[in-house]
Amino acid sequence: MNREELITSIYSKKSLLCIGLDTDLKKIPPMLLKEADPIFSFNKAIIDATKDLATAYKINFAFYEALGSKGFESLEKTIDYIPKDLFSIADAKRSDIGNTSKMYAKSIFEHLNFDAVTLSPYMGRDAFDPFLSYKNKHVILLAHTSNNSSSEIQNQKLSNGAFVFEHVIEHYKNPSNTMFVVGATIPSSSQKKIRSICKESFLLVPGIGAQGGNLSDVLLHLAQPKPYVLINSSRQIIYASQKEDFTKAAHLEAEKLVKEMRTHINF
Amino acid sequence: MNREELITSIYSKKSLLCIGLDTDLKKIPPMLLKEADPIFSFNKAIIDATKDLATAYKINFAFYEALGSKGFESLEKTIDYIPKDLFSIADAKRSDIGNTSKMYAKSIFEHLNFDAVTLSPYMGRDAFDPFLSYKNKHVILLAHTSNNSSSEIQNQKLSNGAFVFEHVIEHYKNPSNTMFVVGATIPSSSQKKIRSICKESFLLVPGIGAQGGNLSDVLLHLAQPKPYVLINSSRQIIYASQKEDFTKAAHLEAEKLVKEMRTHINF
Repeated sequence: MNREELITSIYSKKSLLCIGLDTDLKKIPPMLLKEADPIFSFNKAIIDATKDLATAYKINFAFYEALGSKGFESLEKTIDYIPKDLFSIADAKRSDIGNTSKMYAKSIFEHLNFDAVTLSPYMGRDAFDPFLSYKNKHVILLAHTSNNSSSEIQNQKLSNGAFVFEHVIEHYKNPSNTMFVVGATIPSSSQKKIRSICKESFLLVPGIGAQGGNLSDVLLHLAQPKPYVLINSSRQIIYASQKEDFTKAAHLEAEKLVKEMRTHINF
Repeated sequence: MNREELITSIYSKKSLLCIGLDTDLKKIPPMLLKEADPIFSFNKAIIDATKDLATAYKINFAFYEALGSKGFESLEKTIDYIPKDLFSIADAKRSDIGNTSKMYAKSIFEHLNFDAVTLSPYMGRDAFDPFLSYKNKHVILLAHTSNNSSSEIQNQKLSNGAFVFEHVIEHYKNPSNTMFVVGATIPSSSQKKIRSICKESFLLVPGIGAQGGNLSDVLLHLAQPKPYVLINSSRQIIYASQKEDFTKAAHLEAEKLVKEMRTHINF
């Protein structure tokens, strides 16, 4: 999916919602455990129940890799099942270079056919050039993440006065298929600063809900001047219920978030 | 394997050699392609031919993931085949936090049972604490990598005068199961500086051979005052020949490197 198609999708669905498929055998409804592939059965049900509201799905690779080659099969089936008019994100947070980076790009953009991938910027441009060279595919660089220890490197001040995370955004914001991860948990002042550095860049925003980030702050500071932002929610939606009503409960939670988006944003 | 066992192994084998299993179907001897699992057959033959010389093996995850769940199976068989008295490194360069990081740790240290994993430091300590909490397991943080664009972030100067890569080493060098990736291609002055910051830390050094790093420089600057360093070679050894003699050729290349190590280091 290219940038224009993603923008069109956001305006036509009136939604910035990205649903994170952080699927964990210990948290899905126990009744699904008797299925041949419980992880895929759960994802399929969640996708069916929320695809009218979501603009994107994000698959967190760690949850699948923890199960070995069986988990990888569930991942393959899930990405195949996500409708092609929804934006798909491989949340793999890889960082590697040269041949290795090319192999990852091949795996994620060709074999699995995701629209986008999250990558760490620490090794520099060598790590994402092989991904950026794919047409209609996107790289989402970690800039300012939502975790507690993110300040240890990202908030170090450089000798020119910029923070490391600002340097990352400034340095890599072109070409336009580069997006950035910006946590909902960071201070409003940092959110505003980021938007002033990259007005046209897409941002992927984790951290609302359980992690403590505030949706209305994100909408106010990061979804302006244009709503080029995908706001992720994982647990709040997919684990809204552990009972038979889990798909209904997921739909309701997704709807709640999308309604708040529609109140704040003039789609 | 714990730190003391690794040190003992280095002194008894008189070798700092880590062999990188960057196994690529396009580069292995064509005669292996008729095997049921050519990747594993190749790795098995290379391990058999070099285990008397190597102290460690490093498995580059990207090469296996590019092949989907089949590749993951080859990876599982390979790690099972590496003798337990050799140090095994999951070259996965992951970076994630919280639950996700725990899932990766479980996958790499429990399911696959590697001794060590490479991780990116960009998200801070949240990303490696779940790994560091495993007894007798090791985290290898990217500090100063061997690629061309490594300077874009790693060589930025902080307002306190330190470079980002120095900050990473200084900030994270404890506990003692933390190691660092330091490229053989970086200037001698940076190599010396790094050793002065972390005299006791183990370093994983890629970049000799094809990438242009010099083995004798590494031995002089990074393997002193103590030889706490694993020097990686991948292509130079594993692809020394594409013919039937590939195991012999791999052994010869490995021997050449180990002989140079034994000339410089008083084991």
